[in-house]
Amino acid sequence: MTKPETSESKCDVLIVGAGPAGLMLATWMAHCGINARIVDKRGTKIFSGQADGLQMRSLEVLDSFGIADRVWKEANHLIEMCMWNPGEDGKIRRSDRVPDMPDGISRFYQIVLHQGRIERFFLDNIKKYSKDTLHVERGVLPESLDISENLCGDHSADNYPLTVKLRHLTDEEATPAQSTSSTIQDGLFRSNMVEDDTDDLIRRSKEKQGTTEIIKAKYMVGCDGAHSWTRRQLGFQLEGEPTDFIWGVLDIIPITDFPDIRSRCAIHSASSGSMMVIPRENKLVRLYIQLTEIKPDASGRADRSKITPSTIISAAQKIIAPYNLTYEYCDWWTAYQIGQRVGTNFDYKSRVFLAGDAVHTHSPKAGQGMNVSMQDAFNLGWKLGLVVKGITQPSILQTYQTERRKVAQDLIDFDHRFSRLFSGRPAKDVLDETGVNMTEFKEAFLKGNLFASGLSVDYGASQLVAKDKTAEAQVAQITKNEDLSVIKLGMRFPSHQVLNQADGRPWQFQTRLKSDGRFRLIIFAGNVLSPTQSALLNSFAAKLASSSFLAKYIYSTIDVLTCHSAPRTAVDLLRDFPEVLHPFDPKLGWDYESVYVDDVSYHQGFGDAYVKYGVDKEKGCVVVTRPDQYVGYVGELDPDKGWEGVEGYFKGVFVGK
Amino acid sequence: MTKPETSESKCDVLIVGAGPAGLMLATWMAHCGINARIVDKRGTKIFSGQADGLQMRSLEVLDSFGIADRVWKEANHLIEMCMWNPGEDGKIRRSDRVPDMPDGISRFYQIVLHQGRIERFFLDNIKKYSKDTLHVERGVLPESLDISENLCGDHSADNYPLTVKLRHLTDEEATPAQSTSSTIQDGLFRSNMVEDDTDDLIRRSKEKQGTTEIIKAKYMVGCDGAHSWTRRQLGFQLEGEPTDFIWGVLDIIPITDFPDIRSRCAIHSASSGSMMVIPRENKLVRLYIQLTEIKPDASGRADRSKITPSTIISAAQKIIAPYNLTYEYCDWWTAYQIGQRVGTNFDYKSRVFLAGDAVHTHSPKAGQGMNVSMQDAFNLGWKLGLVVKGITQPSILQTYQTERRKVAQDLIDFDHRFSRLFSGRPAKDVLDETGVNMTEFKEAFLKGNLFASGLSVDYGASQLVAKDKTAEAQVAQITKNEDLSVIKLGMRFPSHQVLNQADGRPWQFQTRLKSDGRFRLIIFAGNVLSPTQSALLNSFAAKLASSSFLAKYIYSTIDVLTCHSAPRTAVDLLRDFPEVLHPFDPKLGWDYESVYVDDVSYHQGFGDAYVKYGVDKEKGCVVVTRPDQYVGYVGELDPDKGWEGVEGYFKGVFVGK
Repeated sequence: MTKPETSESKCDVLIVGAGPAGLMLATWMAHCGINARIVDKRGTKIFSGQADGLQMRSLEVLDSFGIADRVWKEANHLIEMCMWNPGEDGKIRRSDRVPDMPDGISRFYQIVLHQGRIERFFLDNIKKYSKDTLHVERGVLPESLDISENLCGDHSADNYPLTVKLRHLTDEEATPAQSTSSTIQDGLFRSNMVEDDTDDLIRRSKEKQGTTEIIKAKYMVGCDGAHSWTRRQLGFQLEGEPTDFIWGVLDIIPITDFPDIRSRCAIHSASSGSMMVIPRENKLVRLYIQLTEIKPDASGRADRSKITPSTIISAAQKIIAPYNLTYEYCDWWTAYQIGQRVGTNFDYKSRVFLAGDAVHTHSPKAGQGMNVSMQDAFNLGWKLGLVVKGITQPSILQTYQTERRKVAQDLIDFDHRFSRLFSGRPAKDVLDETGVNMTEFKEAFLKGNLFASGLSVDYGASQLVAKDKTAEAQVAQITKNEDLSVIKLGMRFPSHQVLNQADGRPWQFQTRLKSDGRFRLIIFAGNVLSPTQSALLNSFAAKLASSSFLAKYIYSTIDVLTCHSAPRTAVDLLRDFPEVLHPFDPKLGWDYESVYVDDVSYHQGFGDAYVKYGVDKEKGCVVVTRPDQYVGYVGELDPDKGWEGVEGYFKGVFVGK
Repeated sequence: MTKPETSESKCDVLIVGAGPAGLMLATWMAHCGINARIVDKRGTKIFSGQADGLQMRSLEVLDSFGIADRVWKEANHLIEMCMWNPGEDGKIRRSDRVPDMPDGISRFYQIVLHQGRIERFFLDNIKKYSKDTLHVERGVLPESLDISENLCGDHSADNYPLTVKLRHLTDEEATPAQSTSSTIQDGLFRSNMVEDDTDDLIRRSKEKQGTTEIIKAKYMVGCDGAHSWTRRQLGFQLEGEPTDFIWGVLDIIPITDFPDIRSRCAIHSASSGSMMVIPRENKLVRLYIQLTEIKPDASGRADRSKITPSTIISAAQKIIAPYNLTYEYCDWWTAYQIGQRVGTNFDYKSRVFLAGDAVHTHSPKAGQGMNVSMQDAFNLGWKLGLVVKGITQPSILQTYQTERRKVAQDLIDFDHRFSRLFSGRPAKDVLDETGVNMTEFKEAFLKGNLFASGLSVDYGASQLVAKDKTAEAQVAQITKNEDLSVIKLGMRFPSHQVLNQADGRPWQFQTRLKSDGRFRLIIFAGNVLSPTQSALLNSFAAKLASSSFLAKYIYSTIDVLTCHSAPRTAVDLLRDFPEVLHPFDPKLGWDYESVYVDDVSYHQGFGDAYVKYGVDKEKGCVVVTRPDQYVGYVGELDPDKGWEGVEGYFKGVFVGK
């Protein structure tokens, strides 16, 4: 046996795992131009099954990278939600038919498309924005992690505290064995009911003399799933317990006379368990089916040999009776044991981070897995990017854990409540105390929907979110109500239609907040036809144009957007707006893409954005958004106090000279 | 000199020229699965400049192939139209500001994107749908065409009346020489002011011993431009005369204080000529600039050596004064002499066809060139496809010339009027009879806009359009007004929002009419809750299900779509609609994508489709659309007369047994 060569190289960010969290992080790296690598132990990307629901906020995020249109086009759109419960005769009947999501909170609604396609869109986007320099390295996994503890605090450019040994598997090693020889794709190998095979893969690779390499990295992110190898190296735990509830999952083309098979349905049978129907693309339907006849043994684990497509469809047939349900084509199937667990730590010394299933696991029915995982990485990616580039203070990395662990905990709590309501037997009547009250279930479901949309995430006060008593009071003045269409500190900047001043084209304002690593100063200029307001705007703009602190950051790291409320045709871009708001370039002329107006469009109605955002139409306001579209600062359009607030916010975030 | 090898092969359709017309035709071939080839004498596709406007109907057509979303995303959208005329002081001022297009006639509006990108989207689509079997063969051109006259009338499958010799150029031969050595792309080499170089290319190729091949073809389409080699082989002429008006074209990033530079503008100066402003993507603006100081010589041709970017921008500066206009970046430029010409024949014995610039040339300002060329090919492609496949009678090929020559003639007439109004000097006052009245110009412009949208095309009575007195009378009963949102025989099927019955998802109904080579039987089922109406629907469906003539064609060549007007939640797909309208498949279950409803959506309002289409909400009607979405038949939903009309239409079009 000859010893394999071990090469050594450097990178700024090493990403372990190329599922939705890892790919989202790699996408940020590509858009920010960071020297990153992403490795995955599997030899191929997945082809079917797995997570498939995309919530509204996830679509907004994908849109900020330029991916949402492809997803939107291919996906099945969830429009309607039906609830089926036992009637007095014990047979199921439709008790409710409601919109899947309330109107007016996002320009998107919930959709379903299998994870493999979404990963494909990520890969294409990473390729494009990294100019073909960043690829997923498949069949590669970390074997050791050494952290130079004393170097962790020093975030200067030439410091690499992490040393990771990577092993390159052969193709054979990197392909997971399927549990059956049938042509149906079987998801059990990645189910939480199967032991992790990472160590096996490493051991087998060693026997086969796979090559290894050493990477010196500044930061590392473990997006390596529920069995996270990275988490184990750090000694962090997932806290929580499994339940006795076992569910099967089938992706089939159903043959059925059930009338709502193309709507999202929650079906509670009288005594055969519950089922959720999620209609998908290409005539597929995903069924989540409670397996009431399969129980965990004394060790807390169920016997997986009893679970087959045949046992799962039998359970479904009992639940959906008296309707018929069969299939000829099954695309994928799996089973899982419900359990909610959350990681104790998301971050080791701001050098090694965990994201996605590595820090939270829960049941898949609420369609949250892929979404919350992507949102973790969406929160972390730009922070890493800007710290690597030496633009922002390294301390912002600490907000990853404070912001995301709370979301994970909320998710676990939600899933815990929701799973029990869904897996429980429906109450026969009001005296049936061990049964689940169906009215209570419906209320929990609809409330849960809003949580599940991802739009209600509200990050707490930090270096990045200027929430203090003064700021909260300002917000209270500016916003008129609490719904998700209003600008609120710590929440995502909502989207309403505005028009480009120069050409009158309508835009969803949020689409102007691309994920390019830039903060945004959004000036709601109010009624610029008023001399008082125009004077305020000019004075504020003069402060902006002359700030010595911001000179280094304006445009390159702080994009400046303006939206006024005067009639579009009554004002002129060059005459009525200070040049700092639409800067002149000697080769490209004036900028025509930075000034917007809340006015009636020719073909697409009136956005009424000021009212919906909760901004005073006369006085306007000033908003700072972070690179992830979350609102970091809100203040008055005022050359004194408002300006100090804006400059102060950036002084607290950027490195300065 | 050794004689090169000459291979021989067969194909069903040979397309000469890979501009917009040729690529549209190739796209049809790919979607219909036809054995076709497409050759182009140029060695590369174009990279900038040329035609760039896409009208509403073109976008509807691109959408039917699955291309429109890419175009829509990258293009600049034209929202507003401004007119600038001399004031009393002789200086230009804005006289009008109006929407670029009226509202409500299409889900699209006019956009601008350079031809090279649109060709790219076509190429990707052809590759995808032909499963990588159909490619543009560049640097290849026909050298001889032999037509076996006596075989032309026999359209049976094994008959190839055309023999074409193709020459394969070397890379060097296939690359056009630029007229200057500057890095600015110069369009003069494809301008109508330069002689055609096809024969040169052939001659040079012979000297260099390029290889040749023989193709036996059933049909051939010359999409080979204004100098069409194919047209010359047939001995057909273009009729018409050039004018004295010479215009320059600049694609620049403008540096200007002209306030409407990002709107479409028509500028008439008092005495320096006219200019049109077309804002484009990537900060570019296209300027069409009248060159009043350059006149044709005695031969009718202008001296092209006098035309440079510098002389063109000078002319523009005089027109736009007192505003400033310069540039640092020029992407492309060209010049042309206005002339309108139309081909005498579009078709030789239903075997060789001409499309696009090969049969009509005109000035580019109305943005019609690429659009009408694509529409020619869109009209012809499916007819060739269905005849090649032996499905439709070969006589339908004759409708290509009858339908498209009228459109070309209308275009030429429009352009003739419009060019004179645009190139003329503005009238000083009402007594100035040689000047152009600006009110008249505005009216012509707005009316021309509707023509230019491509939506007003109205094909006459033929085998494919069941327009006779009875049919016209039926239409008059069914339609309530004459605007473009109503269903009219001979015109394109308009688009309004309807909902899928099974899942409630809103769709623009026209998007269900994909360009897949199928006719469509669209059953407006009316109020299916009425027992009378339900009985009519069932009887009509029974006729459809039992027709021995249609049995061979239903679903494979005739897609069946239903749209009813009862409340969506009051009816059930399986219970209330005959199975022929949502057929059962043993492997895929029932079809859920064929039955729609005109009802209020949860998130996107009410389409009110019956009212907009002009269909009676109680009684409905029956519509047949051709594979190109044009309405071929309209009749009552009636198991006797209406059914006979439908079956009779198809008996007149299909081959039968």
